[in-house]
Amino acid sequence: MTDHHTKVRSALDACKPGFSLPKAFYNDADLFEADIEAVFYREWLFVGPECEIPNAGDYVTLTVHEAPIIVLRDHEGEVRAFHNSCRHRGSRLCDKARGHTGRLVCPYHQWTYELTGELISTRYMGETFDAGQFPLKPVHVTSVEGLLYICLADTPPDIERFRAEITPYIRPHAPRRTKIVHESVIVEDANWKLVIENNRECYHCAGNHPELLVSLVEMALPNDARFGDEFRLMEEKARDWDALGLPHAPVDGGTEFRCIRLPFREGAKSMTLDGELASKKLLGELTEPDLGSVRAFRIPNNWHHVLSEMTIHFRVLPLGPNRSEVRTTWCVHEDAIEGWDYDVKHLSHVWIETNDQDKRLAEENQRGTRSPAYEPGPYSEVSEFMILNFLDWYKDALDAWLSGASAQQQAAE
Amino acid sequence: MTDHHTKVRSALDACKPGFSLPKAFYNDADLFEADIEAVFYREWLFVGPECEIPNAGDYVTLTVHEAPIIVLRDHEGEVRAFHNSCRHRGSRLCDKARGHTGRLVCPYHQWTYELTGELISTRYMGETFDAGQFPLKPVHVTSVEGLLYICLADTPPDIERFRAEITPYIRPHAPRRTKIVHESVIVEDANWKLVIENNRECYHCAGNHPELLVSLVEMALPNDARFGDEFRLMEEKARDWDALGLPHAPVDGGTEFRCIRLPFREGAKSMTLDGELASKKLLGELTEPDLGSVRAFRIPNNWHHVLSEMTIHFRVLPLGPNRSEVRTTWCVHEDAIEGWDYDVKHLSHVWIETNDQDKRLAEENQRGTRSPAYEPGPYSEVSEFMILNFLDWYKDALDAWLSGASAQQQAAE
Amino acid sequence: MTDHHTKVRSALDACKPGFSLPKAFYNDADLFEADIEAVFYREWLFVGPECEIPNAGDYVTLTVHEAPIIVLRDHEGEVRAFHNSCRHRGSRLCDKARGHTGRLVCPYHQWTYELTGELISTRYMGETFDAGQFPLKPVHVTSVEGLLYICLADTPPDIERFRAEITPYIRPHAPRRTKIVHESVIVEDANWKLVIENNRECYHCAGNHPELLVSLVEMALPNDARFGDEFRLMEEKARDWDALGLPHAPVDGGTEFRCIRLPFREGAKSMTLDGELASKKLLGELTEPDLGSVRAFRIPNNWHHVLSEMTIHFRVLPLGPNRSEVRTTWCVHEDAIEGWDYDVKHLSHVWIETNDQDKRLAEENQRGTRSPAYEPGPYSEVSEFMILNFLDWYKDALDAWLSGASAQQQAAE
Repeated sequence: MTDHHTKVRSALDACKPGFSLPKAFYNDADLFEADIEAVFYREWLFVGPECEIPNAGDYVTLTVHEAPIIVLRDHEGEVRAFHNSCRHRGSRLCDKARGHTGRLVCPYHQWTYELTGELISTRYMGETFDAGQFPLKPVHVTSVEGLLYICLADTPPDIERFRAEITPYIRPHAPRRTKIVHESVIVEDANWKLVIENNRECYHCAGNHPELLVSLVEMALPNDARFGDEFRLMEEKARDWDALGLPHAPVDGGTEFRCIRLPFREGAKSMTLDGELASKKLLGELTEPDLGSVRAFRIPNNWHHVLSEMTIHFRVLPLGPNRSEVRTTWCVHEDAIEGWDYDVKHLSHVWIETNDQDKRLAEENQRGTRSPAYEPGPYSEVSEFMILNFLDWYKDALDAWLSGASAQQQAAE
Repeated sequence: MTDHHTKVRSALDACKPGFSLPKAFYNDADLFEADIEAVFYREWLFVGPECEIPNAGDYVTLTVHEAPIIVLRDHEGEVRAFHNSCRHRGSRLCDKARGHTGRLVCPYHQWTYELTGELISTRYMGETFDAGQFPLKPVHVTSVEGLLYICLADTPPDIERFRAEITPYIRPHAPRRTKIVHESVIVEDANWKLVIENNRECYHCAGNHPELLVSLVEMALPNDARFGDEFRLMEEKARDWDALGLPHAPVDGGTEFRCIRLPFREGAKSMTLDGELASKKLLGELTEPDLGSVRAFRIPNNWHHVLSEMTIHFRVLPLGPNRSEVRTTWCVHEDAIEGWDYDVKHLSHVWIETNDQDKRLAEENQRGTRSPAYEPGPYSEVSEFMILNFLDWYKDALDAWLSGASAQQQAAE
Repeated sequence: MTDHHTKVRSALDACKPGFSLPKAFYNDADLFEADIEAVFYREWLFVGPECEIPNAGDYVTLTVHEAPIIVLRDHEGEVRAFHNSCRHRGSRLCDKARGHTGRLVCPYHQWTYELTGELISTRYMGETFDAGQFPLKPVHVTSVEGLLYICLADTPPDIERFRAEITPYIRPHAPRRTKIVHESVIVEDANWKLVIENNRECYHCAGNHPELLVSLVEMALPNDARFGDEFRLMEEKARDWDALGLPHAPVDGGTEFRCIRLPFREGAKSMTLDGELASKKLLGELTEPDLGSVRAFRIPNNWHHVLSEMTIHFRVLPLGPNRSEVRTTWCVHEDAIEGWDYDVKHLSHVWIETNDQDKRLAEENQRGTRSPAYEPGPYSEVSEFMILNFLDWYKDALDAWLSGASAQQQAAE
C-alpha cells in the first residue's frame, strides 16, 4: 500500500460505530482524493432529469471533480455521455451548461465529432492520421425512468436493483413527460458528506425549516417512533394509495438507496408555502392531487421528491475538501403553462429557503469539525439512522477501494 | 522525529543570531503548522478586554487557526472559555462575534448547554444516552487585571509572573471599569511574526507614521541612546509619576513580556492627532491627565497602550503562512458619554492610520522574504533589540516543542 | 535524486513524441516548481522594451514567480537589474510597476542604495556595521537591440547567438527610438506552457481570430504547405525587401528562438482592423510602409511583431500551475504624436481582441487537461511544428536541470 492508502486505512480504523466521522474525513486533502477515487469516479452519479435533453442534439454538461462530462441525445434518440475533452490537445469541447448542436466541434481547432463520439473531421493532420483511433471517450449513462445517471468507472456497479425498485413508485408520475421550470446552483463551504448527512435526517428540521414544515412530516418511516398523531394520517393515506394502485411502503435498498411514499401534513398537498399545488396540471395520467411525495435517495449524491404535480431533484458534487455544489431542479408537466398552471416563485420558494438554511447548517458543521478539539459525537439512532446507513455504505466503499488497490498491487508484484 | 520535525529542526539550525529569520519561517506551510502547534495551541493568547463581557450570559468568540472558541461570563459571574463545537456532530455553537445568551443552544439540533458547559438537554438520544459524558470542552481562561487570556494547552505555561509584574502598572487605570467604544479588524497578507516584528521596533516610525509621532517618542527605554533631547522629559515625568505612586521603570519580563511607562512628546497628552485627551473622563480614580502610556507586550500575540483616559489593545491571530488578523479595541471609562466626553473618530484616528501603514509595511516585507534571493539581514541592536528578544523567545518555543515531541516519541518506544 | 526529481524524471519518461504533454505537466504543483527552477530561474526572460526606461533613474519592476526584480538605468546610462528586496529585513524596495528615482530608498527603514546597488546610508546600525557587505543582489540584464532580457541564474546561458541573428532584422526598426503607447496585463487561468503552445501555431486562427486574420497570413514559413495563393505574395515581397536590404528569410534559431519576416495579407499594411498603418510616422529611418512583420519568438516566454510603424511585445510569466500573466506592450516612433500620427484604440484593438480570444482558448484547454480521462493527443506536423520545437526545448531543459541536480548530488557524496 502507498502512504496515501495507509493514511486512508488508518483513518477508517479510527472510526467509531454510531459516531460521526473523525476530523480528517471532513477536512483532509488526501481523504478527499480518496473520496474522489473510491466514490465519485466509481459510482453511478445523478446528472439531472432526462427531460432536460428531450430532442436529438440536446446536451448538458457537468464537472465531476476534475472530469468535465457531456451528456447528450444522439440522432437516433439514444442518450450518450462522453468525457468533454477533445482528443487533439484536450480542450473542453463544450463550455456551456446546456445547449443544442448537430455535431460536437472543438472551439480550438475545429476537430469535429458525431454525436456518437466518432471523430469525423480534422484539418492538417496528414495522410497517415487515423481518425478512428480518436473517438471521444465514452462514459456510462442510463436513464432510470427519466432520471439520468452516469458512471465514470470502466466497469460500473449494478444499478438494476435500484431501477427495478423505484420504477413502480415514480413511473405513474411520468418524469419523462415533465420540463424543468426552475434550477438553482449553490455552493456550500462544506464537505460533500456533511451536505448528505444534513439531508439524511430531519432531526434539525424543527429548529431550522419553518417553510418546509408547512408540508413535510418529520418522520422517515411509517412506524417512526416520533410519528405520534400523524400515524393516523399515514394509515388513511395508505388506504387511498392502495386503492389507486400507487406503492408507498419503504423499499429495501439496503445502504444503497431508499424509496418511500409519505403523506404531507394534514391540509398540505404540496411543498409550497401555502400547501397548495405547485401546478394545476397533474403529472402523467394522475387524477388525484393528494399523493404525498415519493422520497428517493441514492448514494452517493442525490435525492428526489416526486409529487402529484411536481418533481424536485437534488444533486451534490464535490468541489474540494470543504466545498460542494448543490444543484436543484424543479419540474412540472411538459404541457403546464406558466402563469396559468404554475408560478415559478410559488413552486420554488420552499426549497430555495430550505437549501439556504441547510447551506448555513452544513457550513457551521464544517467549521466545528475543523477544530483540533472536535471529537466524533453520537448519532441519534431514532432520528439519524439514515446517516448511519450512509456512513456504513461510505466506509464499505472506501474499504472496497483499498482492497482493490491492494489486490492490484499484489497482482503486479 | 517525523519528517516534519526534522524540517523544523533544520530550519532552526539555519538561523543566524542577530539576523532576520530564513525564508521558510515566513512562508513555508509546514513551518506555519509548527507555529500553530508550538505557539498558538500552547501559549496564553490575548482575547480582548474583559469589559467586553460585563454581564452574566455575555460572550465573545474568536478562532485560533482552526479552533473556534467561545469566552463567556456564567451565571455566577465567572469567566469561562470553551471550544465552540457541539459534542453531537461538531457544529459551531455560536456564529456571532459577540452576544448574550442564557444557555448555549446548538443551532443544528438544539443540544443545549449550561454556561458552565454542562449538557442539559437533547432530544431523541434514547434512554441509555449519558449527557454527563458530553460537556463542552473547556479552555483555560484568566483575566489579568481586566485583560482576558486563554490557553488551549492541556497544561498551560505560567502566567502569574506576568500578572504580578504588570498589575501595579495598569490597576490604577482600572481596565475592568472601561467599555469598548471602537473596534477594528484588519487582515494583513503577512506572516504573524512579521506583524509582531513590525510592532517590536520604532526604527520604521520616522519614515512611516506621521500621525503616531505627534505623541509617540521613538525610544523604547529611558536610557535609549536615541533619546537625546527628550531625556530631560523622561526625568521630569519620572519625578511626577513617583510622586503619584505610579510605576514607570521597565519591568524584567525576560523574553516573555515587557512593561514600561513612557512619556509622550512634549505637549501631547494622548495618542490623538492633536495630542489632546481622547476622553475628558479619566480612567479609574486618576486625576492627572499627563501619564504618558503604559506600553505592555506579551508573547506571542498582543500589545497594549494604557493611558490616563483610554486603553488600546492589539491582538494578532494567524490565518495562514502569509496572512494574519489584527484586532484593535479602544476603551474609555465606562461612564464616559459619547459626544460629550469623547468622539470616536478623534480617539481612533491615529491608530487606524498607523495600523494601515503597518499593514502595508508588513505586506511589503512579506513579499520580499518570498524571493529566492532573500537572505536574512542584520537587525540594529540599538533600535531592534526587542525583535531580537521576540525571536529568542520564538526559537526557544520551537525548540521546546521539538524536544517535547522527541521525548514523547522516546517514551512511546 | 530526491522524490521531487524522481517524479519529474518519471513524468518526462511518460512523454510521447509528437503528442501533447501528460496531465501532470499542465497541472501538478511539483512539476510547476520544476518549471520555475529549470526554466524561469535559469533562462533569459524578456522584461519589456528598453524604451520604457529611457532616462537615468527610470525603473520598471516585475515578479518572476516569487522573485521581485527591479530593472533600472543608472546615472551612467547603464541598464542594471537587482533583486527588489532590501538587505536589511528583506522588504520589497519598490512597490510600483514603474517610476523614476535618484536612489533606491527602502520604505521600511530607509536603507538607501545607489542605482549601482551600493548601500550608502543606514541609521542605527552601529560602528561595526560594514555597509559594503550589503549591496543589492544583482541580476544579469542585457538589451538585445532595445529588448530587455534578465537572467536570474548565477551563470546565464548564451544569448549572443540570439542577438547576432535577430539584430539585422530589427535594427532597421530602431526599437530604442520608440515609446510605449499602450500596455495590457491580463491573467489567464492556464499553465504558462499552454499559453505558449497557443502562440506557437495558427491552426486555431481561422476559427477564432477574425480581427487578426484581416492582416495575418496563417503560414509560418515561406514554403508553408498551406500557403497556396499567397505564395506569389511572398515572392513579390521578398524581391521588394531584398531591394531595401531588409532581411526576411527564416533564421536558424534551433529550438531556442525563431525570427522571420512575413508579409501581411494582400491590401493590409499593419495589424489593425482596417489594415491601415497604426502610426503615420514610420520607425527609424524607414520610408517604405509595406514591410510585413518581423515575427520573433524566444524561449521560454516572449514573442514580438516588429512592423514598419509599430512594435508589439508579448511576455508570459507563470503565476501558478494553472495561472499565468500575459503583458503586451505597443510601441510607436518616439516622436509620433497621439491624435495626429496614431490613435491608441486603432493600434491596440486587434491584439486586445486576439489576446482575449486566446485567453479563453488556453483556459478551455487547461480545463480539459485536468480531466482524469485526458490523454495526450497528436500534434499536426504541418501546422503545429513550432509547438513540437517548443516542447523539444522544454523537455531538454528539464532533462538538463535533472542531470545538473544529479551531478551536484554525486559531487556532494
